[in-house]
Amino acid sequence: MLLYSLLYLSGYNISLEDIDKFRQMGSKTPGHPEYNIKNGVETTTGPLAQGFSNSVGLAIEGKILAEKFNKKGFPLFDYTIYTLMGDGCNMEGLSYESASLAGHLGLDNLIAIYDSNNISIDGNTNITFTENVAKRYEAFGWEVDFFDATNGVETFDEKLNNLKKIKGRPKILITKTIIGKGLNKKENTNKIHGSPAGIDEIAYFIQNSGIKNIFEKKYGKESVKNIEKLKEIMQARVKNKESLLQNNEVVLFMKQCIENNEFIYNKWKELNLKYKKSFPKEYIKLKQFLNLSINNSIKEKLLNYIEDKPDSTRNVAGRVLNLCAEQIPQIIGGSADLASSTKANLILSKYIEKKDFSGRNIAYGIREHAMCSINNGLALNQTMLPFSSTFLTFFDYMKPGIRLAALMKLNHMFIFSHDSFYVGEDGPTHQPIEHINSLRLIPDINVFRPANDIEAAFSFLYFLENLNGPIAIITTRQSVMEEAYNNSFKRPELYENFKKGAYIFYETRGLKKPDVIIGASGSELGVSYRTAKLIEEKDNLKVRVISIPCLELFSKSDKTYKDHLLFNKETFFVFIEAGSHRGVDLFYDKNMMLIDIQHFGASASGKELQKEYGIYCEAIYDKIKRNIN
Amino acid sequence: MLLYSLLYLSGYNISLEDIDKFRQMGSKTPGHPEYNIKNGVETTTGPLAQGFSNSVGLAIEGKILAEKFNKKGFPLFDYTIYTLMGDGCNMEGLSYESASLAGHLGLDNLIAIYDSNNISIDGNTNITFTENVAKRYEAFGWEVDFFDATNGVETFDEKLNNLKKIKGRPKILITKTIIGKGLNKKENTNKIHGSPAGIDEIAYFIQNSGIKNIFEKKYGKESVKNIEKLKEIMQARVKNKESLLQNNEVVLFMKQCIENNEFIYNKWKELNLKYKKSFPKEYIKLKQFLNLSINNSIKEKLLNYIEDKPDSTRNVAGRVLNLCAEQIPQIIGGSADLASSTKANLILSKYIEKKDFSGRNIAYGIREHAMCSINNGLALNQTMLPFSSTFLTFFDYMKPGIRLAALMKLNHMFIFSHDSFYVGEDGPTHQPIEHINSLRLIPDINVFRPANDIEAAFSFLYFLENLNGPIAIITTRQSVMEEAYNNSFKRPELYENFKKGAYIFYETRGLKKPDVIIGASGSELGVSYRTAKLIEEKDNLKVRVISIPCLELFSKSDKTYKDHLLFNKETFFVFIEAGSHRGVDLFYDKNMMLIDIQHFGASASGKELQKEYGIYCEAIYDKIKRNIN
Repeated sequence: MLLYSLLYLSGYNISLEDIDKFRQMGSKTPGHPEYNIKNGVETTTGPLAQGFSNSVGLAIEGKILAEKFNKKGFPLFDYTIYTLMGDGCNMEGLSYESASLAGHLGLDNLIAIYDSNNISIDGNTNITFTENVAKRYEAFGWEVDFFDATNGVETFDEKLNNLKKIKGRPKILITKTIIGKGLNKKENTNKIHGSPAGIDEIAYFIQNSGIKNIFEKKYGKESVKNIEKLKEIMQARVKNKESLLQNNEVVLFMKQCIENNEFIYNKWKELNLKYKKSFPKEYIKLKQFLNLSINNSIKEKLLNYIEDKPDSTRNVAGRVLNLCAEQIPQIIGGSADLASSTKANLILSKYIEKKDFSGRNIAYGIREHAMCSINNGLALNQTMLPFSSTFLTFFDYMKPGIRLAALMKLNHMFIFSHDSFYVGEDGPTHQPIEHINSLRLIPDINVFRPANDIEAAFSFLYFLENLNGPIAIITTRQSVMEEAYNNSFKRPELYENFKKGAYIFYETRGLKKPDVIIGASGSELGVSYRTAKLIEEKDNLKVRVISIPCLELFSKSDKTYKDHLLFNKETFFVFIEAGSHRGVDLFYDKNMMLIDIQHFGASASGKELQKEYGIYCEAIYDKIKRNIN
Repeated sequence: MLLYSLLYLSGYNISLEDIDKFRQMGSKTPGHPEYNIKNGVETTTGPLAQGFSNSVGLAIEGKILAEKFNKKGFPLFDYTIYTLMGDGCNMEGLSYESASLAGHLGLDNLIAIYDSNNISIDGNTNITFTENVAKRYEAFGWEVDFFDATNGVETFDEKLNNLKKIKGRPKILITKTIIGKGLNKKENTNKIHGSPAGIDEIAYFIQNSGIKNIFEKKYGKESVKNIEKLKEIMQARVKNKESLLQNNEVVLFMKQCIENNEFIYNKWKELNLKYKKSFPKEYIKLKQFLNLSINNSIKEKLLNYIEDKPDSTRNVAGRVLNLCAEQIPQIIGGSADLASSTKANLILSKYIEKKDFSGRNIAYGIREHAMCSINNGLALNQTMLPFSSTFLTFFDYMKPGIRLAALMKLNHMFIFSHDSFYVGEDGPTHQPIEHINSLRLIPDINVFRPANDIEAAFSFLYFLENLNGPIAIITTRQSVMEEAYNNSFKRPELYENFKKGAYIFYETRGLKKPDVIIGASGSELGVSYRTAKLIEEKDNLKVRVISIPCLELFSKSDKTYKDHLLFNKETFFVFIEAGSHRGVDLFYDKNMMLIDIQHFGASASGKELQKEYGIYCEAIYDKIKRNIN
């Protein structure tokens, strides 16, 4: 409510009517702020420490833009990111990860205001949170300062301005506050965390705060003193939709703020114009950079991408990512200490570091969650195209951030390597089983599990063509392409079908009605294809193999296409995927079969596990044979 | 490999043959240690910071046992938990959360040895990890000490013993080490993180380390000096399975260690006997406590549990948990600052705190991940029954820990409240959509979504009866029981069916063959029941309603039972659940319908969202009518 009130007063696209619809269906003022740049809501917050981590990303963006475009005397990008955090944010491990990296990078364009009121939902934080937060931030290389807001905020601005001047490190202003300050019984308690104060408490507040003067002026001293009368006044005001936000003093003060900001903005526009004249080439580059648009040349390259020999899809995806990055300067990102394994690393560039933000790789360290949420921050202004990468099994560590990327529809690429049990000897902790479908369950993120070089390139192409939300690309450690090579496809047509999430990868020559349809994604496409050949050979049956690189897109494709591919579900259908699909058996009937993994993996070679788990040609053939009748 | 070698030398159930099968199928020596108390592997590790967090749980357990059973002069439980952590562990936010809580609780029975070699998979940690770790732990209230192991470890023991004496706070020994120390080219590089050193490097190591003497004694100085000869010797040793672990000096040294430990253990056994004599009542209690067995009285209570009026399942689950805790002292746990909301709070007890571990609630703070992984630690010794609780949507923050609970089959109860969009005004960040099925996808955890008081009690009963792995109980914020009340069931029979994951909740009187079967879980059972009544009334059709509290158990139940409930899938089947089931449509045919939520929620009242998303009686009725033909 504080945010919406300030946005209203600052002249953003939030009206009093919007504020009146607080937490109601379709309003601009939902219960937790929801990302909407136009309305001044810079990110979706609510899950703790996410906003703070986003702000680290925004600060990195500021540093990159400054490094890229600022010239001597032309500080086009010299803004400061302010972020508000609470006790809860500081308890979450995510805030630690992000703060540690911010300190490492010396992000002096970041100021965190820590609203330290020592109250969280279950009461006073002293029941669990007694660490020395100041010392902790010092350990991260932050500048730490203190402000006591319990007795007024007059010098707060000055404090911030002084902090702003400090160079070389991020800053945190630990600000002592009292939650519900000025309330009668709820002050300094958890009762005012998420519930309205209630009319009695607000009446008490009016009687005992500076707001009293406003009321006395309008309604007389006696009315304000008498609590019942005051409550009547308040109820009448609610009825007449009279808001304190319309109070003259408030409006005048805010008008001055707006004018002041406009003055600053106009000065910046002048600087921008001068820059345009002095550095015309850079200015064009700047425009292009901020006007994120993907040229056709890279799209063509991706559409026709081909490799000359079998490889793992992690290696392919790494090369495709680099191909994209060569032509798209907005691509930046990194991995959680696994660049050498996931191959999501820009070989054309170096790591960003303190005082040198010209790199395009970010060494996130083993901080998966911060990687995701900081990269979400990098995506917020819609100029950068960040990528995050780790082993698929460790997507768990960053799930809360992925959910927010999807909810905000951020253009964030997730590259998850080391798919399924094939990972081998590292054992079950490193073998993703439930992860493919866990990702798919999240709304508004497309999960691609490419089976070969072409599908890997198409996955990136789909992202770049659409730029309307995050994607996850799941890649393998092991070589898979030898089994899933099919270069007889005509490219534009193949891509058209790829966009529908699934396509006919192979079928028996001259087939009119298939006897069996096998559907598969990623690393199981090869074995499906070979099983199809075996069925043809041994039983003289007609087989169709469907590659399903993106189940979500296939789900959303039109019914005609689905019916076409699945032959109206009149044919025996087998779906093979080395991940868990629990609960699905409720839905399939005798005409369908699912071959998946319903248990954790084990430490052994990928090949041995394939044998053990029956994900090889002969075993699948036998299963199909047993069930086809 | 270090762990397995030490276990072998310490006389655990690990042989040289086992070590020879390192990272192979079915071996006792998988790529990452896998929980097996008998073999001396105290927890499954690999995902970073999990082992460290487990150790915080083990330390809490030690404190609780000491508080409960130690008597003056009888320090039955005074052990120290040692935990080994690396740079990666310290980068993970999880380690921060756990360390912060350990500091708050003053766990002086915990010593962390931080193997600080400054190398992680992507190279030197100075590219991303430059914080002052010592200062950070000091900020958490830990005792911090240093040890330089790069020049020998002779005084390491002494250091540890000194640390052990310090009271009132946990301790960390920051130990400078060199990864691959003594190797030629791989020393101090990431090349020796996860790959074998190779014969050349090991030959070099032998020539330049203390091991040289052993080889020289046996094979002569000249042979060791000549690298080619040395390599031949090494290869012969490998062929003959001669291990350095069999070296006399090593074996003798370890024998002495074992004898020393046996001496200590025998002394403890004497103490234990004296305790038995001096405190016979306490001794019986202790035996009972460690011999976790659930009495029949509580099982009976749960079997016959009933509430007298409608309520939310979070309130019911809270009461049932308390009922269990009254009789089962091993139940201990807490929530991530949401006890007041999730209701998973033991009202009969207080919070544990520094120097007073007599409480049975733990205030985890807003540290979901640490809560989970610390509680995993509490479950490891199989004496405690921990519970972890938060909003269902925030299970994301703790997923890596839940996965390990399932992998280790720990008896850990997860209580997740605020199910689905019904949460209302808090908006999409607080409304779980993908979470029910994300949980179900994890192998070896049963997810219960109780629809009423009976199913809630049965969920706990199932856990206590089996004690063979974690369960998740999903509860609602809103009242649901008025719609899902059915007290006509006979209890033992109902529970028999409940254990199969699903049962017939209602069917049209005298039904022989249903025209429609509606399946639902949790909060949708009520609306399913009312829809069934509407269908009967309006269309004179025969309807069966199946309650599916646990989809996993239903999946695993025998085919006859499944066919019976679903009427051999010959009848139109509708499954209603307010969560996402992406990809399932690939499997169902014209005879099935899924009514679920494929999108994020919104900030509005639960009732409004029900309307908007069509999860109400009339909308469901219309959908069924449109599709039944």
